[in-house]
Amino acid sequence: MPTEEEHKKFLQMAIDESRFSIEHKSSPFGAVIVKDGKLISKAHNSVVFSNDATAHAEVNAIRMAGKVLHTFDLTGCILYSSCEPCPMCLNAAKWANIKEVYFAADRDDADKIGFRDLVFYKGGDIKVKHISLIEADKVMQEWYHSKDKKPY
Amino acid sequence: MPTEEEHKKFLQMAIDESRFSIEHKSSPFGAVIVKDGKLISKAHNSVVFSNDATAHAEVNAIRMAGKVLHTFDLTGCILYSSCEPCPMCLNAAKWANIKEVYFAADRDDADKIGFRDLVFYKGGDIKVKHISLIEADKVMQEWYHSKDKKPY
Repeated sequence: MPTEEEHKKFLQMAIDESRFSIEHKSSPFGAVIVKDGKLISKAHNSVVFSNDATAHAEVNAIRMAGKVLHTFDLTGCILYSSCEPCPMCLNAAKWANIKEVYFAADRDDADKIGFRDLVFYKGGDIKVKHISLIEADKVMQEWYHSKDKKPY
Repeated sequence: MPTEEEHKKFLQMAIDESRFSIEHKSSPFGAVIVKDGKLISKAHNSVVFSNDATAHAEVNAIRMAGKVLHTFDLTGCILYSSCEPCPMCLNAAKWANIKEVYFAADRDDADKIGFRDLVFYKGGDIKVKHISLIEADKVMQEWYHSKDKKPY
């Protein structure tokens, strides 16, 4: 178990990455991923420059860790973020089997500089509609009963 | 405004993509993005083969649409998914300014074949801890007051 000091050290690396990000005219967020006390990946937000709405610091760090470890399964990894992960990033961490997340600034700080994390945590403005087409579930069932399936 | 028949046509394309996915031994999910009645991108889940926990069909389609349209801002786009978007994908759509989402199978169908969408919608098992380090917000404020900032 890392000590509070170790958590702060890695959080500081995430903050350093957020500084690197604004020095390169990108958004002010950084994240690092650590396993067994070792740095696996560090990344900053690149939404604007990569034309990718999903390229938050945490998502970028998760993608990079997957490449480094040659698996999508980041069990045993800890995510450190300069700012509280938005719901997209938090759920990305869950899918990656990350069980621990530490952050320095929070969703209110993000809100104050114009990011919509707080809004999205409350729901946000999006219309989501179910149009039942049975074939979708048929494909899913076919996969479920196939020997090729790789569940996660 | 697209008609119900048009919505079904694009949903069917997303389902076709989910079938393509299982035929290539990937997970049973597909998504397409449409703007002004025109297909912008289509993608399937590639988590296992790309070692990327974030590579759900919807995220892949959003990334691809960003490349096609040369912007992270997918205002005016509609997302169609073979299965109800998980919280990660739903929030990815919000960040991309997508205002309409249609899906065919739902989170219960995903649950039945072993995917954790339903669990994550309820919260999931993850420890998230705030360790306040003032420098994180300092970087964010610096960005906010710089002329280089590109808000979104």
